[in-house]
Formats: sequence, C-alpha cells, structure tokens
Amino acid sequence: MIYPGELVQLVSPKGKRYLRTFNPDEALHTHEGKLDLGLLRETDFGDYIKTHLGKKYRVLKPTLHDLLKNIKRETQIIYPKDIGYILLKLSVGPGSRIIEFGSGSGSLTLALAWYAGSTGIVYSFERREKFMEICANNLARVGLQDNVQQINQDIEEGIDLHEMDCAFIDVRTPWECLDQVVQGVRNGAPVGFLLPTVNQVSALLESMDQGPFSDVEVVELMLRHYKPVSDRLRPEDRMVAHTGFLVFARLNKNMPEKE
Amino acid sequence: MIYPGELVQLVSPKGKRYLRTFNPDEALHTHEGKLDLGLLRETDFGDYIKTHLGKKYRVLKPTLHDLLKNIKRETQIIYPKDIGYILLKLSVGPGSRIIEFGSGSGSLTLALAWYAGSTGIVYSFERREKFMEICANNLARVGLQDNVQQINQDIEEGIDLHEMDCAFIDVRTPWECLDQVVQGVRNGAPVGFLLPTVNQVSALLESMDQGPFSDVEVVELMLRHYKPVSDRLRPEDRMVAHTGFLVFARLNKNMPEKE
Amino acid sequence: MIYPGELVQLVSPKGKRYLRTFNPDEALHTHEGKLDLGLLRETDFGDYIKTHLGKKYRVLKPTLHDLLKNIKRETQIIYPKDIGYILLKLSVGPGSRIIEFGSGSGSLTLALAWYAGSTGIVYSFERREKFMEICANNLARVGLQDNVQQINQDIEEGIDLHEMDCAFIDVRTPWECLDQVVQGVRNGAPVGFLLPTVNQVSALLESMDQGPFSDVEVVELMLRHYKPVSDRLRPEDRMVAHTGFLVFARLNKNMPEKE
Amino acid sequence: MIYPGELVQLVSPKGKRYLRTFNPDEALHTHEGKLDLGLLRETDFGDYIKTHLGKKYRVLKPTLHDLLKNIKRETQIIYPKDIGYILLKLSVGPGSRIIEFGSGSGSLTLALAWYAGSTGIVYSFERREKFMEICANNLARVGLQDNVQQINQDIEEGIDLHEMDCAFIDVRTPWECLDQVVQGVRNGAPVGFLLPTVNQVSALLESMDQGPFSDVEVVELMLRHYKPVSDRLRPEDRMVAHTGFLVFARLNKNMPEKE
Repeated sequence: MIYPGELVQLVSPKGKRYLRTFNPDEALHTHEGKLDLGLLRETDFGDYIKTHLGKKYRVLKPTLHDLLKNIKRETQIIYPKDIGYILLKLSVGPGSRIIEFGSGSGSLTLALAWYAGSTGIVYSFERREKFMEICANNLARVGLQDNVQQINQDIEEGIDLHEMDCAFIDVRTPWECLDQVVQGVRNGAPVGFLLPTVNQVSALLESMDQGPFSDVEVVELMLRHYKPVSDRLRPEDRMVAHTGFLVFARLNKNMPEKE
Repeated sequence: MIYPGELVQLVSPKGKRYLRTFNPDEALHTHEGKLDLGLLRETDFGDYIKTHLGKKYRVLKPTLHDLLKNIKRETQIIYPKDIGYILLKLSVGPGSRIIEFGSGSGSLTLALAWYAGSTGIVYSFERREKFMEICANNLARVGLQDNVQQINQDIEEGIDLHEMDCAFIDVRTPWECLDQVVQGVRNGAPVGFLLPTVNQVSALLESMDQGPFSDVEVVELMLRHYKPVSDRLRPEDRMVAHTGFLVFARLNKNMPEKE
Repeated sequence: MIYPGELVQLVSPKGKRYLRTFNPDEALHTHEGKLDLGLLRETDFGDYIKTHLGKKYRVLKPTLHDLLKNIKRETQIIYPKDIGYILLKLSVGPGSRIIEFGSGSGSLTLALAWYAGSTGIVYSFERREKFMEICANNLARVGLQDNVQQINQDIEEGIDLHEMDCAFIDVRTPWECLDQVVQGVRNGAPVGFLLPTVNQVSALLESMDQGPFSDVEVVELMLRHYKPVSDRLRPEDRMVAHTGFLVFARLNKNMPEKE
Repeated sequence: MIYPGELVQLVSPKGKRYLRTFNPDEALHTHEGKLDLGLLRETDFGDYIKTHLGKKYRVLKPTLHDLLKNIKRETQIIYPKDIGYILLKLSVGPGSRIIEFGSGSGSLTLALAWYAGSTGIVYSFERREKFMEICANNLARVGLQDNVQQINQDIEEGIDLHEMDCAFIDVRTPWECLDQVVQGVRNGAPVGFLLPTVNQVSALLESMDQGPFSDVEVVELMLRHYKPVSDRLRPEDRMVAHTGFLVFARLNKNMPEKE
C-alpha cells in the first residue's frame, strides 16, 4: 500500500517517467489515457496501475538518483556523479551541519538535506531570488524543506554562522568569499568547490595559497554509459564530457606562515 | 576537546597520515619522535600536537573519504568514486535495509553502514572467513559494526531475507545468485553490481535479460586528478584507469514475459 | 595562383565549408550569393574571393584532416584520431604495400593512399558494391584513386596477395578472415583491426590466440575538445565517447606451438 | 635476407626489445647469451636467430611506432597518440616543407621527417645544444637525418624561412614566437602547438586572439590500453592520463581587424 504524501515515480510503457507526491484525488493525463492516481492506494511499489485505456504504468519508489535527475532547473545543475563524490569528501552524514554557498536549482542542496537528515541542517545561500524559489520548490516537492534553511543574501555581506561541519561553494567567483568560508566552518573542516573553467580553478588555487587551507585537491569525474546489450556491449556513442572541476581542501588555521 | 573513543587522523609535517581511535594512554612512535596521544585531550580538531622532539602533528576529524582510503585491504577494494555513485543509485539513506553479497575488505560495507545509520541495517554476506574478519575489523575500527550483520555463508545455499530496500552484489559470478537477489529485495528495488571485466558484464546482462529486471544501466566512472598548482595547472601524468564496471537495475516482478 | 584540378576548401563568413576540385568554369551558389570559381585563378591559398553580393569566402588548401572530415559516408567512418594512430602502428609510409579488408566509405583508404603515395599501393577489399562505389568516389574526388586497387569480393573466397607490408581489417567478423591476413602479409608484418563492441574484441582475441600472432595490443583513443576561449577555457560539454576498439598484432609464423 | 644498414628490432624470448642498425660484424650481449648479428644475413624479417646458448630472438622490421618508442630522450617526448593526430591536422605528407620550433629529443621531428620523405624537409629549431645533439643522434640512428635541417638558435632572434607548408611549435612560451610563425608559413597554412598546462593554453589563446589566426581548436587525446585477454577483457589498471594539450589553427593574414 502506498500512502498519500509519498513520492511516487510512474513509468509509462515506453519508459517515460513522471515524479509525483501521491494525492489520491489527482489524475495524470497521458498519451495512453487517463491515470487515476487513487488506484495507487490499492497497489504497492514495484506493481502497475492501468490507464482508462488499459495501459500499464509501473509504480516505483524514486531513488535519490531519480530525484536528482528530476530537479526543475534553470541553471546548470550539479550532476549525480559529482554529488556522490562530494558527499564522501565532505563526510556528510546524519546530523551534519553544512554551509552551501550558491543554491542554484538545488540539486546538491537536495542531496545534502537527504543525507544530513532531520538531525542535521543545510544553510543554503543564494543571492538571486528566482533561484531561491526554484530551490525551495525542488526541496518541498520531495519533502526535504525542513532540513534546509535558505538564506537570500549576498555572501560578501557576511554570514552569521560558525563552527559548521563542512562547506560547499558553487558560485562564479568563490575566491571572493573565502573569508566567509573560513569564518563559517570549524578548524580542520573539509570544504569543496565546483568550477566550470580552468581559469576559475587557477584563480581559486591562487587565493587559497594565501590562506588557511591545506590538503588541496583538484579532480574531475567522468561518467561513461554503455549500451546494456549482452552480445553487443559497447560504450555509448556520445557522453557528457564536462560538468565542472571539483576542488577540495581542509581549513587549517594553524598553518605556518608563507615565506 | 577530543574524547576517548573518537576517531582521529594525525598528519605528520610531511603529510603522512595515521588513523587512530583515541586512547589517551597510547603513544604513536614516529620518525619525528614520540607522540603522546594523551595530549589530544587538551587540543581540538584542526589543531596540532607536538612530538617529544617538537614536531607538529595536525589533528583532523577523518572524513568518510579518509576512512575509505584507510581500509585495511587484502582484496581489490571498491573506490570512493564508485561508492558515491552507488549510494545515489541505491538510494541509501538513514534507515535503509540493505543486502550486500560479497563483503570483501568492507569498503562499501563501511559506507553503506555510515549512511544507513543506526536505524538501518546492512546484511553483508561473505563466503571466505578471512575476508569476513578483515571486514569486521575495518568496521569495528571506525565504530560502525552495530549497523552491519555479517553472514559467513555461500549465497547459493539460500538466504533468509525478504523485502529489503536494495542490494549490491560484488562477487565473481553474480549471475549465479540472481535468484537470491530477487528473493531478498522488495519489488521495484534498485540493485547494483560491480564487475571488473567486460565478459562478466556481458554474462550478467544475458542472465538479467531472462529475469525480472528492468531499467538496466552499465556505467563506468573515471576520476582524474590535477596538480593543484595555480600557475601550472594540469592533469596528473598518470591515473587509475579502471576499477570496475557498474551495472544497475530495478527488480520488476511484473515484467511481461519474453517471447 | 591556384591551378585547375587542385583541391580547394571555401569557407563562408559563418564558417560553412565547401570542398571542391577547382574547375574555373563552375560556380558555387551560396546563401550569400553566387561565387564564380574562375576567380580562384587570380587568388592564392589563404586569400578570399567574393560572391556577387560582396561576401568574402576564404580559400584554403584542405589538409588531410579536412579531407577525412568531408568524406561522403553511408557507414560509420574511421575517425581521424584513430587513423593517425593506425598509420604509426602499421608504419605506413611512402612506398607501403597495404591490404585493407573492408573499404567502407573509404576514410582510412584515403589516408593510407595519401601516405603510401604513388610508389605504394592499397589493395582495398569490399564485398558490398554500393560501398565500393562510395569509396571510389571519395578517392577520385581528392585524386588518390591511382594509389588504390579496389577489389569487389568476399574475402573468404581467398585473395591473391602475398608479402604485403601490413594489413588493416575493418569487417564485422574479422576472425573469419584471419587465414587471408596470414597469407597476405610478410612474416613479422604489423596488422590492425577496428571493432565497435567488446564481444567482437573478445572473439577476435580468442581466434588470434590460436594463430600465428604476437605482440597483441588492444587500445582505445578518446578525443576531447575544449572551448578555445582564453579566459573561460574548459572542455566542451559533450564529446564522442566511442568509435571503436583498435587491436594490433604482428604476424609471427614461427611461434612456438601452444600446449 | 636483411642488408647491412637496415634497421632491425630484436625481441628476446621474454619480450625485451633491442633496436639496431644492422652491422654484420657486431654482436649483442644478452642475458641469454651472445647474439652474433652476422646471422641476420641468412635470415629474414619475421624469423628468429639464436644466441650461442640456443635462445631464439625474433627479428622484426621496426614500425614507425617502434622507432618513436625507442627514442633516446632527456625531455618529455611527444607521444605517438599525439603525433598521429598532428600529422593529419598539419597535413604532413611526401614533399611537405615543415617548420618545427623546439626539437626536444626529436620524436615528432623523426615522424615529420619520415612522412615528409626525401622530397620534403623539416626545419627544426632548438636553442639548447644538448637537445640538438640528442635529436641529431635519434635521427641518424634511423637514417632520417637528410630530411631534417637542424638549426641551433633562439627563435626570437628571427628566422630565415618563408612560405613553408605548416609549423609545429613545442616550446615553453610559444606566444613569444608567433611573429616567427606568421612569417614562416604561407597564408592559410595549418599550425600546431603542444602545451602541458592549461595556463599556457590560455596565454597562447590570448595572444592568438590578437593575431592572424582562425579555426582555433584545443584538443586532448587519451589512450587507454586493455589487457588483451579474450575471456577476461578489461582496461589496464593504470594509464598515462596527460601528455599535453594540442592547439591547432590556420594562418589568416586577411582577417578582419578586431574592434
């Protein structure tokens, strides 16, 4: 049985996917007929419900990966391949208290909120009101809004946070908000950055060289899909070749002075 | 202040790293002198303690990534780049009930236990006693043993689990335990596999074609490190070129019969 | 001055490219007006000619890379990234006597003919008459037809060649024509294969294991383009992720028997 | 029959390779005994000769790829994967007249000389006398010295070449010798650059933006080796992840002025 308010993914016979918060009074109008969502009450995840034309729609419990792929976006989003790695590097887990500079459409925000859980909190800063809203909607749609505090301000105006567990920065000129990063997280904390161009990476590294950061790493993840055909197995013809470079470091306030 | 029993990472002046569970009565004997760990009581994460020769060792709270890199291993381990993506695809989170076929040295086990948390559980199967022990030690060392139930048996003998949330299979011939996968997870659940060779991927796809699986995907993740030097930024000369292929699918017990 | 019969590449103001063999009596009808090709007689490579509407078209001597990109194709062609490497591995050069099994649209044929030169020869086999013709047209268009002898037959019927310098095989089931490869090239000669799927690579390796081949290598080349913008340098968003796997070996008729 | 003066590659039973210019009076002293090279007179490429202890050494005609891998080097060399692509982009072929700025150890010089042939010429500039010599030796060893004119000077002092077919530049600060490039090649000619760091690529693009260059491209080639085992086919564990970025352009003296 599926309960009202649960997230549901409906998959058409042709593989088209619809993400919904289950409301038994709603219907989904598809090319294969009307789908009465009330039927979900008598089914279970993994099963099918039928349109009024008898077409079967598979009912799946969406994974975190599904939610991230279904983000409503008006910016370049952070991709799952990068998010997974960010989680491990920032050591995000139940109870984490996280700073995010640059909510964007909220794909990373959503994943951070998912893993921080109800005992943790994500402070997500976004200067542009429009993206604040998009992010808010993406969080509310999947019921994670309570784990996030959204803050609509320019980071350079200063922030009122201290001793957070980690920080992730996805803004165009992150070297301009390093002071806020240093102030916001506890000493030794892991911090991460996403940057699309090599010029940005270079500029960030130059600024970080001046400041209290050590263990600096620059990495890039590439995800290659294969055609899943047993007797004609081969990589897909085309792939996403670039999303962004990831920079990671640890705050180190006791660094020896640079000569 | 750091408390006895907490995990601590000590970083030497040259960057050598030591992972320890804090016991104030212990000492660490290093090339730069003896490090009295009792000193940790008066310090905090991010700070330094000194050896009896005055050399500073940085004190860090290890991230999950640090823990995964410090796994004691006697097998090929699953790499962080792959683990991060697996977490999202399997939708592992607080409370998840997970099947793992093939504990190996326990790197994925550790990450699953970390994210499932104390409200979740990982049932980790391993046929070889030696690896059971290595995995057990790796879990105990970081205090995650209570989130995992280790089971020392051949999977093909049958398992006593049902309706689990997801499964990950890292064994040499996964096509021989698909029946146990199908039995163990709830309908619609995400399942994943790691396989080093293309022949194994092909054999697995062939078996999955016969069975109740849909949404089959084959992917490969590549992680490229850059030299983090602002004015001479470039990829590292060499990289890990291959760890394994990842296969993901959803259990689909209501699949139409193959003609 | 450009002479009739020379290959010319015309580049529109917007970067559209036209490849032509220069005939002074022809005209090119473009969106920016009519281009009287007779004007080429009074210009030189690197300069411009104008349409009757005054739009400048740049006149370039096409490179081999340009010719390969302009191949008329009805099949998957072999890409320049792969062709360059094949040339070095097969040691193609002025005077080379080369066997090609599978002309396809003739992109590799063209490059082999270019480098073998007038003192060398490419014997290019193609079973399908249609592709024979496409290949013939692609060669004639760039004036390389005299360096190639096209042979329209099934390779398995047997070939009448011996002691050739090298061979390249681009057919669907290359393991079925290994006898012809062995017969056709001199002992020690380098041979190469292109195969899209891992299953084909595996099947070929299995057959080669039985036969007189050593120094077997399997490689794959990836070409990544960057946006050529000085202050926003970054990889292109998408790339060709797969063209084919390359297999290389040396004929070794004196191999010790397999036990 | 193999003739004195021919290049020969000898392969030991364990796969160790020796490149020699055949001199029948010489001997090769190996771990498996003395190899009287005079024996080569009675053998042929593809066959074996035996040491005085009866061990078989295979006799191969080295490919261009073999020669490039055997370059004596004291610098980072240009790799075959890059050389193959450079050849196509610069349209090097029999009769090509080529400028090379920065001979280094001469790996690209060798390949350019091989393909330009005796009717072409490579003008190879190198400021450092030591590398001049290394390059000279590498060319002489394979008999290609007559196709190359080595020039030991600082490029910025000016060069005495005009209307060459193409140019390749492999120096640390190529933006400082763009005037010499522009002077040296004919209008419309293809030019190429190799650069290890992104900062260099960015600086070069900035300079090229000011000058008479169009069709600018930045690419990177990755070569991945697979274990050539039929039933356990998989990528090698590690790979060369970076050699350099390639930049290509066409000289365009009639470019519209930048505003």
